[in-house]
Amino acid sequence: MAVDEESKKAFLASAIDAAQKAGELIRKGFYQTKHVEHKGVVDLVTETDKACEELIFTQLKQQYPTHKFIGEETTAAFGTTELTDDPTWIVDPLDGTTNFVHGFPFVCVSIGLTIGKTPEVGVVYNPIMNELFTGVRGQGAFLNGNPIKVSSQTELMSSLLATEAGTKRDKITLDASTDRINSLLFKVRSLRMSGSCALNLCGIACGRLDVFFEVGFGGPWDVAGGAVIVREAGGVVFDPSGADFDITAQRVAASNPFVKDAFVDALRDMV
Amino acid sequence: MAVDEESKKAFLASAIDAAQKAGELIRKGFYQTKHVEHKGVVDLVTETDKACEELIFTQLKQQYPTHKFIGEETTAAFGTTELTDDPTWIVDPLDGTTNFVHGFPFVCVSIGLTIGKTPEVGVVYNPIMNELFTGVRGQGAFLNGNPIKVSSQTELMSSLLATEAGTKRDKITLDASTDRINSLLFKVRSLRMSGSCALNLCGIACGRLDVFFEVGFGGPWDVAGGAVIVREAGGVVFDPSGADFDITAQRVAASNPFVKDAFVDALRDMV
Repeated sequence: MAVDEESKKAFLASAIDAAQKAGELIRKGFYQTKHVEHKGVVDLVTETDKACEELIFTQLKQQYPTHKFIGEETTAAFGTTELTDDPTWIVDPLDGTTNFVHGFPFVCVSIGLTIGKTPEVGVVYNPIMNELFTGVRGQGAFLNGNPIKVSSQTELMSSLLATEAGTKRDKITLDASTDRINSLLFKVRSLRMSGSCALNLCGIACGRLDVFFEVGFGGPWDVAGGAVIVREAGGVVFDPSGADFDITAQRVAASNPFVKDAFVDALRDMV
Repeated sequence: MAVDEESKKAFLASAIDAAQKAGELIRKGFYQTKHVEHKGVVDLVTETDKACEELIFTQLKQQYPTHKFIGEETTAAFGTTELTDDPTWIVDPLDGTTNFVHGFPFVCVSIGLTIGKTPEVGVVYNPIMNELFTGVRGQGAFLNGNPIKVSSQTELMSSLLATEAGTKRDKITLDASTDRINSLLFKVRSLRMSGSCALNLCGIACGRLDVFFEVGFGGPWDVAGGAVIVREAGGVVFDPSGADFDITAQRVAASNPFVKDAFVDALRDMV
C-alpha cells in the first residue's frame, strides 16, 4: 500500500497533536507524584497511562476510522494484537513509568504508524524536558522542528552506549544482563541508563548516544515511534544479532552507520 | 571557625553568580560540539573546563582573597591540594565531561565551600536543563529557588538506584563494578546512570533518585557541592561502608534516611 507524501504529513500532524495533549496529562501527573503517598503513586501511573492511551486512540480513531491500533494498555488488557499490513498506530502512552513514579525526567509519549509493517511516521515527546522528536520516512527527522542527525563517531571505543537493566529480576535474566554490560564496558567509552527505550532511540537519532541495544522490553510500542526517527536521522536500526530489525521481536539495536559493524561484533556472541 | 548566617548567604550568592557565568560558557560549548570534528571536541572540553575554572576562581578570589581553593583543573596540573580547616572553595568547573563531548544533557558546574572541612555551601548548576540546585548548612536546599526534599521511599526493593560505570577499564576494576551492579539489581527497582556524580547527589536531594553510591571518582570537587544540598534536603551522605563520609576519600553514598540502613547492608559486603 503506497502512501503519498501529503498523507504522511497529515498523519504526522495528527500524531503530534495527540502526543502533545497526552504530554500535558503526563506533565500534570509528573509533578503530582511528589505530593502523593507511595501507594497512590502507583495508581497515578496507571490512571495517567490509561487516560493518555484513551485520549490518543479516541482522537486518532476519529480521524482515521479504518486504521488499526495497538497500544500498551490495550494489549495488556486484551492480549496480543497481531501486526498486519494495514495502517496501524502503535502507541506507548507513557514510556518510562518507573521514571514517572520517581520524578526522573526521562518520560515520554511514543506514537508510531506502520504501513505494510514498516514504520512510516514517528513521534516521541518528552513533556518534562519539552523535547518533541519527529520523523517521517523520506522526509527527515527533527527535534522541536530542527533537523537532527546521528553522531559522526567512527570508533566503538569512543562511543557512548545506552542500555537498560530491564524489569525482570530472575537470576538467569539479570546475570545475562550484567554479563553483557561487563563485556561491553571494555569496548566503549561509557554507559548511560535513562529508563526509556523510546528516548534512547531518540538519543541515537540526535547524536547524544552512539550505540544502543535492549532485549526483552515490553513490545512494539517501545520502538515503533523511535525507529523511523533514527532512520530518518541517518542511523540504522537492527536486531542485536545483526539481522534485520523485527518490530515485534522485543529486541532492538540502533547506532550511526559507522560503528554498526563493530557494535554487532561486540554484541553477537551475547544476544 | 564559626560563620554567621549572613556570611553564608553572601558566600552562596557569590557561588551562584560564578556558577551561572561558568554555565553560560558550558552552554555555548555544549551546542558547538555538534559542529566540531571529534578531535576538536576533546580540545573544546579542555578549553571549556579551564575557562570555567579560571572564571570561577578569579571571581571568588577577588571577593575572598584569604580563602583557599581546590579545583579539578588546578589539582590535575599541580598535584594534590591538601584540605585544611580554612574556608576552602572546592570546584568542579565541568562535571560530566563525557556527556559534554556527546551532547548528553547531564552536565554541570559544582561549587562547594568547606569550613573546618565541613561542606557549608553548595551550588550545582546544569545550564542545559536550566536547573540550579543550592544548599547552605542550616538554611535548606532549593531547586531554582523552590525548597526540595529527599524521597519518602521506605523500601530498598522499590528504590531507584544511581551509580556509574566509572572511567577505569582494567579488568579488576570493571569486574568489581559490574559485580556490584549485579548484586544490587536484585535488591532495588531499577538503575540509572547519568554520568554526573554531582547531579546524582542532586537527584537524591530532590527525590528523583532514592539511593546512590560511587567509588573511585575524580576527587572532592565531585561531591563538595552536592553533599550539603543532600543534607539540607533531609538526606544522608555517608561512606558506602556505612562509615562517616570523608570528602577526600573518593567514595560516596547518599540516600534518604529511611532506606539508608538497608542500602548499607546491601553495599557493605562489596565496597
